[in-house]
Amino acid sequence: MELIQAPNEPGARGRILAAAARLFYRQGIRSTGIDQVIAEAAVAKASLYAHFGSKDALVTAWLEQRDRAWFAWFDRAVLEVASEPLPRLLGVFDVLGRWFGSEGFRGCAFINSALELNQPGHPSLPIVARHAAQLESRLTALAREAGLPEPERVGRQLFLLVEGAVVCAAIGRGPEAAVEARAAAARLLGVA
Amino acid sequence: MELIQAPNEPGARGRILAAAARLFYRQGIRSTGIDQVIAEAAVAKASLYAHFGSKDALVTAWLEQRDRAWFAWFDRAVLEVASEPLPRLLGVFDVLGRWFGSEGFRGCAFINSALELNQPGHPSLPIVARHAAQLESRLTALAREAGLPEPERVGRQLFLLVEGAVVCAAIGRGPEAAVEARAAAARLLGVA
Repeated sequence: MELIQAPNEPGARGRILAAAARLFYRQGIRSTGIDQVIAEAAVAKASLYAHFGSKDALVTAWLEQRDRAWFAWFDRAVLEVASEPLPRLLGVFDVLGRWFGSEGFRGCAFINSALELNQPGHPSLPIVARHAAQLESRLTALAREAGLPEPERVGRQLFLLVEGAVVCAAIGRGPEAAVEARAAAARLLGVA
Repeated sequence: MELIQAPNEPGARGRILAAAARLFYRQGIRSTGIDQVIAEAAVAKASLYAHFGSKDALVTAWLEQRDRAWFAWFDRAVLEVASEPLPRLLGVFDVLGRWFGSEGFRGCAFINSALELNQPGHPSLPIVARHAAQLESRLTALAREAGLPEPERVGRQLFLLVEGAVVCAAIGRGPEAAVEARAAAARLLGVA
């Protein structure tokens, strides 16, 4: 079972979204044809178009759902990783390491989609930008709670480490990338 | 003109490789059909298969060529960015910023390809891993020349910042990602 689970919506719409989510994340957006989605969801093509209108809109609906599911998992895991603010901020990297080592992990759906689509004006790109901005503000908020000076700067710099770790993990370095990023973060914060 | 230029090999093989390089980098590997490559290279399909054997082999040849061209550009730019070792190490991020802002930039060909292919055992993956390892050793070597303690650790941690910056630049943050990564690197090195 994957670590990040979207709620199963009932009915044809939910089945289409669940099938699209599995296929888009596992094999990418362009490699996933509408025909494969409807076969996996066991619905008629007309049903997909009635619910979503277009493949682009289906991609957008998937990323909206993934954004909610990812932060639901992340926020809870970060809350549970440590009770004090500074260990919690560093614990972000332990949480990420668990994700990197989890079944079916193949990187950040938002980074992967933005890199793959590479189309200025694609309706999914604002969701990617918002997901990134929200992750960065989570880090800034944790830095602020920890009483660190310049929490916005800390948030921006830790965000770069998070993105670097996610990509390194996805292209073959695995959970070790999170261990390395945690050590770098501790040094950045002056607590190494 | 793109910042990173591969030498133009003469003949049909060179034309195929140049066309594949433009198309694979701009629109991704899966979105680029063999037919588009041969049309852009103005060669017969038999010529492509005679020279490369398969699309996977063409991808591999492109990444091998791109690896040489990228490091030829990078090594020269880093050498010229500063004459002293520590400013040169930090200057890596100025060099990256120029790349992020250059015409046709759309991220790291190696990261993009590995994320897009996502096939364990694909013949291109060892080239991606080697490119990453070589970039990390460039950073380690610069850290050693600068007389920094634990140059391997510094190399690994700066590599994470480099990867984070490349991805942030590619998904919409542009050259500003390099400025931020440089500031984070200076802090990591204790010279902020």
